[in-house]
Amino acid sequence: MGAGGPQESEEMILRSARCEIERVGILGLRVADVASGANSSISQIYRHFKNRDGLLARVLGDMYDEFTLDVVRNYLARLEGKNPLTVDAVVDAIPLQFGAGSMRSQELRLQVLAVSTTNEALRLRLERCTALLVAEWNAALDWIESRMAPGESLDRRVFLMVLALQNPYYRALLGEQGFTEDEYRDFLREKMRVTR
Amino acid sequence: MGAGGPQESEEMILRSARCEIERVGILGLRVADVASGANSSISQIYRHFKNRDGLLARVLGDMYDEFTLDVVRNYLARLEGKNPLTVDAVVDAIPLQFGAGSMRSQELRLQVLAVSTTNEALRLRLERCTALLVAEWNAALDWIESRMAPGESLDRRVFLMVLALQNPYYRALLGEQGFTEDEYRDFLREKMRVTR
Repeated sequence: MGAGGPQESEEMILRSARCEIERVGILGLRVADVASGANSSISQIYRHFKNRDGLLARVLGDMYDEFTLDVVRNYLARLEGKNPLTVDAVVDAIPLQFGAGSMRSQELRLQVLAVSTTNEALRLRLERCTALLVAEWNAALDWIESRMAPGESLDRRVFLMVLALQNPYYRALLGEQGFTEDEYRDFLREKMRVTR
Repeated sequence: MGAGGPQESEEMILRSARCEIERVGILGLRVADVASGANSSISQIYRHFKNRDGLLARVLGDMYDEFTLDVVRNYLARLEGKNPLTVDAVVDAIPLQFGAGSMRSQELRLQVLAVSTTNEALRLRLERCTALLVAEWNAALDWIESRMAPGESLDRRVFLMVLALQNPYYRALLGEQGFTEDEYRDFLREKMRVTR
């Protein structure tokens, strides 16, 4: 069992769980391996998190928060200094995660979602995270609309009904039959522009 | 070990695996439980499917085929007898799976996708299934376009870039902040209609 107070021991368990997830993925995670990596014991882990589901709800919930909560801030940073805003600029700044480099985080995200279908605490945590994310997007879109150039206007539903629901993993499964990032941006640009 | 030839034994293993998935979900599936449900043994299962991943690739691949391959046929059946076709009719017939009743199949689908991120044989199977699905959709859309009423025209990219990528589970996570099926259909109708 590790030295230090309960908070320090909890942090060591969380760090060890993250390392194990890096090593074997979420689906193969074993509590015994998390315990030895944290210089702790299974019963110690259960004291902190009740059971394997409790540990997963905490670790995967933290990961999901990290996937999502910087997204809006990073997006607005890419629009900073562009004044007034145009539909083209708004679409160009959208992160699409089509590249091979973001495949790993797409896969982890899918694994987190899959676990949440059988882990109630995790599912509730993802719902809270999603609610927060929508509130941030709405505030961001208010700010964007207040800075649009005259005659430029966007359909906010594209954010909520297309981008918020999209799963880029499906596009990866399309392989050669898939579309390019440029084709997708052309499509978004066209569908987002509102002509009055 | 069960009586009968190798084919019969394989079918019993596949049936038992399906029952176990119904009972404990995909992520909790244990090969030992599949073996006892099939009146078989772990080594017998490995003889047929090499290992746990091989068994999962076969069973989950079969499930994914079933999720997807009836979709196009059922869709065309709903359009049967509507002649000539309109954009409204095309959108009304799209299956959205927003209801609570289809939640279970959404969750299983997410679990299959998550497993495929760490199971190469399953991932290749999903890619083949997706390629087949796209070919069927393209043939269906050719048929639909040939029957459209004069002046009615649709943007096929909405099928490939919106509907094929959407994950209704994200909408479920939106909870009260989510949109209704009617709002989503209004959106699709508007974005799918091409005015020349």
